Amino acid sequence: MMPAADQDTIRAIIDARSANVSSGEVETSMADIDESVVMFDVVDPLRHIGKASSLARARSWRATFEQPPRLETRDVEVFLSGDVAFSHFLSHVSGTQKTGQKVEMWFRTTLGFERKQGRWRIVHEHGSVPFNPETGHVSLGLRPEGKPS
Amino acid sequence: MMPAADQDTIRAIIDARSANVSSGEVETSMADIDESVVMFDVVDPLRHIGKASSLARARSWRATFEQPPRLETRDVEVFLSGDVAFSHFLSHVSGTQKTGQKVEMWFRTTLGFERKQGRWRIVHEHGSVPFNPETGHVSLGLRPEGKPS
Repeated sequence: MMPAADQDTIRAIIDARSANVSSGEVETSMADIDESVVMFDVVDPLRHIGKASSLARARSWRATFEQPPRLETRDVEVFLSGDVAFSHFLSHVSGTQKTGQKVEMWFRTTLGFERKQGRWRIVHEHGSVPFNPETGHVSLGLRPEGKPS
Repeated sequence: MMPAADQDTIRAIIDARSANVSSGEVETSMADIDESVVMFDVVDPLRHIGKASSLARARSWRATFEQPPRLETRDVEVFLSGDVAFSHFLSHVSGTQKTGQKVEMWFRTTLGFERKQGRWRIVHEHGSVPFNPETGHVSLGLRPEGKPS
């Protein structure tokens, strides 16, 4: 049902993404993204369809920072059967933009995977921050309850 | 790899949810939610862990409306293998809250499924609206490009 080796591969992909973003390797951080990816990003627009759009977004985000932002994850859960898997976790990004603006926020990430020709590919990505319905503002100051696992 | 019957079951669960929300059947709309669900909702907090928290959120949201809001989906894609599946799609909600506030927005939904004792269960839900990084406001006015499929 859930072979340890495949679980490990999925977790390694997630860890490598964080490491590559944190070391400024934007292209490498997107290596496991499938050409067909449908990405729901934390910021506008509603969605990106295809890797080219997703990659352009990653590049332009990275370009707002002088030094690479630091990306970390916690509470990674992986569900896997046969050639399909998905994972959800909390992500934390911190850094300083070229404008001097400090970025430090928790967001939620869900990834969908499909094994294609023997290789696990990210075919769906959903990142988001919830909003406060009273104010219409995004809730950038939220923190997970409890300690990081 | 992707038996049509299972695909149909997943799609029927998604359709039933929209129908049940739209007819005001909150409890029924949550029937396929697993006790273990981890839900990332469109509004605060960062996450809900467990069905009780998720159901409380659904009830309190419903209670802000006199008449049930209308929930619709488009561009539903399902990935399924063995006993795991995930789906992503766009959702549209419209209605009028008791305060007189009109609600009309597109949001993104990802659902994660696991088959437990022969029954497909929603073990993860991620709903969100992106925000505008210039203003910090949630982007409630976004519309999908093209026509509904």
